[in-house]
Amino acid sequence: MLDRKDILGIEELGRDEIETILSTAASFKEVSTREIKKVPTLRGKTVINLFYEPSTRTRTSFEIAAKRMSADAINISVSASSIKKGETLKDTALNLEAMAPDCIVVRHGSAGTPRMLAGYLDCSVINAGDGAHEHPSQALLDIFTVKERLGRIEGLHVVIVGDIAHSRVARSNIHGFTKMGARVTVCGPPTMIPPGIESLGCSVTHEMEGAVEDADVIMMLRIQLERQTKALFPSIREYSRLYGLDAGKLKRAKEGVIILHPGPINRGVEISPEVADGPWSLILDQVTNGVAVRMALFYLLLGGARE
Amino acid sequence: MLDRKDILGIEELGRDEIETILSTAASFKEVSTREIKKVPTLRGKTVINLFYEPSTRTRTSFEIAAKRMSADAINISVSASSIKKGETLKDTALNLEAMAPDCIVVRHGSAGTPRMLAGYLDCSVINAGDGAHEHPSQALLDIFTVKERLGRIEGLHVVIVGDIAHSRVARSNIHGFTKMGARVTVCGPPTMIPPGIESLGCSVTHEMEGAVEDADVIMMLRIQLERQTKALFPSIREYSRLYGLDAGKLKRAKEGVIILHPGPINRGVEISPEVADGPWSLILDQVTNGVAVRMALFYLLLGGARE
Amino acid sequence: MLDRKDILGIEELGRDEIETILSTAASFKEVSTREIKKVPTLRGKTVINLFYEPSTRTRTSFEIAAKRMSADAINISVSASSIKKGETLKDTALNLEAMAPDCIVVRHGSAGTPRMLAGYLDCSVINAGDGAHEHPSQALLDIFTVKERLGRIEGLHVVIVGDIAHSRVARSNIHGFTKMGARVTVCGPPTMIPPGIESLGCSVTHEMEGAVEDADVIMMLRIQLERQTKALFPSIREYSRLYGLDAGKLKRAKEGVIILHPGPINRGVEISPEVADGPWSLILDQVTNGVAVRMALFYLLLGGARE
Repeated sequence: MLDRKDILGIEELGRDEIETILSTAASFKEVSTREIKKVPTLRGKTVINLFYEPSTRTRTSFEIAAKRMSADAINISVSASSIKKGETLKDTALNLEAMAPDCIVVRHGSAGTPRMLAGYLDCSVINAGDGAHEHPSQALLDIFTVKERLGRIEGLHVVIVGDIAHSRVARSNIHGFTKMGARVTVCGPPTMIPPGIESLGCSVTHEMEGAVEDADVIMMLRIQLERQTKALFPSIREYSRLYGLDAGKLKRAKEGVIILHPGPINRGVEISPEVADGPWSLILDQVTNGVAVRMALFYLLLGGARE
Repeated sequence: MLDRKDILGIEELGRDEIETILSTAASFKEVSTREIKKVPTLRGKTVINLFYEPSTRTRTSFEIAAKRMSADAINISVSASSIKKGETLKDTALNLEAMAPDCIVVRHGSAGTPRMLAGYLDCSVINAGDGAHEHPSQALLDIFTVKERLGRIEGLHVVIVGDIAHSRVARSNIHGFTKMGARVTVCGPPTMIPPGIESLGCSVTHEMEGAVEDADVIMMLRIQLERQTKALFPSIREYSRLYGLDAGKLKRAKEGVIILHPGPINRGVEISPEVADGPWSLILDQVTNGVAVRMALFYLLLGGARE
Repeated sequence: MLDRKDILGIEELGRDEIETILSTAASFKEVSTREIKKVPTLRGKTVINLFYEPSTRTRTSFEIAAKRMSADAINISVSASSIKKGETLKDTALNLEAMAPDCIVVRHGSAGTPRMLAGYLDCSVINAGDGAHEHPSQALLDIFTVKERLGRIEGLHVVIVGDIAHSRVARSNIHGFTKMGARVTVCGPPTMIPPGIESLGCSVTHEMEGAVEDADVIMMLRIQLERQTKALFPSIREYSRLYGLDAGKLKRAKEGVIILHPGPINRGVEISPEVADGPWSLILDQVTNGVAVRMALFYLLLGGARE
């Protein structure tokens, strides 16, 4: 069990806690390979997926994880329009808690919202992504995936490429991989690297070739095409040429390098199809491991008796 | 068990039926406090939540109630656009019934829709709010909450403040509290009090001070900010000054007065934060009791064998 | 069991396979009439309903079928807007499969999408309607309904009336009924009959009177009122006069003719209320049988041990 009620970010987790989550996830991964993919562990528990931003894949992953643990899963998606005329976040939270859920999984466009919720509530809160702040279950599944393939995290060099400034995935992974003993470099054009990011314990580079050469793990971030108007780079084609990962750039990489991407991928933008679908890519393993990691989080927070 | 197939409004319920629902809800309330919040009572029953108006909290409450009884819950939300090109309500209802649900929970913008449905269908229908007509499960949870706190309904004075004319909550509660032996006064500006409302057995006042002084229970209704254009009052600020409940107005109230609100609340409009969050407020108890009352309705209508 | 992993269309099914599905559906139909409408057959299986077009009734039918088999059902509805900025269909499919579902039920506006998905995936895929191509579970429930009422399919004359060119229901039923030994005639204005449709094994007529006279089964298709701008016919009134089924036209039909409609019906357009609600109409039986047929498909594809 974890000695905490919420999972709000990797920043606050200790290395021992991360290791507990990883080993618990490893034990639950097998459930999804069974003929009957279900354990009774969390029967009678109620999980609410409270999503203020649309998400198919993350919500589905949490919902499947809850159901395979035999918990009841309730989905609530809150549209931007209904927020405007609606009650405060605090009132929404207190009202939901009055229905006695065991865990609220929350995604919100504003950094810090899950922490606010957790402060109001006695039930568990899991941050499923808050603004550009953290997405801890994503980082946990990334670390799980790397460790599963390479056998360790300690001493690895992890390069994260893309729009670091707007990426909750990057922030959570910088915290997570450095805590676990890896070295992290972030890479992208200057407009996409937030000033002072080094204070999180990572290095910065703007040149992708060198970063790739020295990497054990390359994590490509999704370019938000819809955010292009912010003019963070001259054109998608130029971005792709400089920072997209294709077979040409990958030739310089070490033997055995592995490629991660949190999805959904933009084929031909930040990652070429041959890389995304190649043997070095663990993108689909990440998705599979996401269910196992979320089962582990539910188990560790809701404290069901293990069977 | 109740000797009826539907719950369409409080108007048609007898006092003994209301008492049966309250005592059944009392016995189910404990389920949501257990480690394993689930009873097998309605296993294999199918509940359809058919919502023609968006609702997060009421739909969630019915869904949680169904799942804690082990029923299968199916959510259908019908948008205004799909109604236009769609089939008639009767055809929708008959088609759903052909899939053998045990209960359809319906919310609709037009008064009388649940009764029409119930007339077409052999399965149970619960009205989850129809236009400005009735919202019976809300009134039942309100009565439950008052009785739980004050030990009785008989002889109490209940004051309902707000837009009585457009409130299904007000109508259901006038019926419910008067049937149970309470005295009900409705309070609001003349534009918000429908002519002839006294025929439901309540008194009318336009002055909040006097009403508050004499109340055992004050129920504040939500002001529909989006309906403001109808010009029912000159400004929200003026409404709030005259009919909003704040600590100043509450000073005149009796010791031990309790405050209800069906939610979602507009803080600073019809209720001030210090009142909403104060010890006299039972707003979150209402939400908790809503799950218990809805479990009771499912139980009493669907006739599961008690365990 | 069926010796295939997917149900993509009736075109590819053999007569023996259709008969297996029908007899399995017959055995599952009884489940929905029980006090406890649930069998444990598919406990621990995960079914994903992936709908790229809005659908209330088909999605609900698949969801109820899955839950009555004790499978976990996950609903994903993908809006047109999110497709635009999103990943490719292939990536969506591979990502969902990485979460270890047993079956993906897919509806999509483009013909062939379910087949593409099935090619990418190891899990089962059921086509819940793809463009104007096929809607196999609809045809199976139609055949089931006719056989249940008339005792046979062999030798019957089935007349399908409406916009044949844009109807996946028509195509699936032409394949299905002809495979089962019936004779099929399609009927509609020339603008609604695709050239070469006879190659599917049906006859064509533009005159409804004669077609009705000679029919054992009349299947009326829904007119897509929203598609009217395409000018397939001068006016709805004229369509209705020529091709709508009313009591007048039905007088010429054989004793014992039965009427089908996939729903939702446009009362007074392609079918008059007296026909839709009359004793010759099996429209609601179709809906009831839809749940049984979908339970059968899940059972036959997911291979649960029968209890």
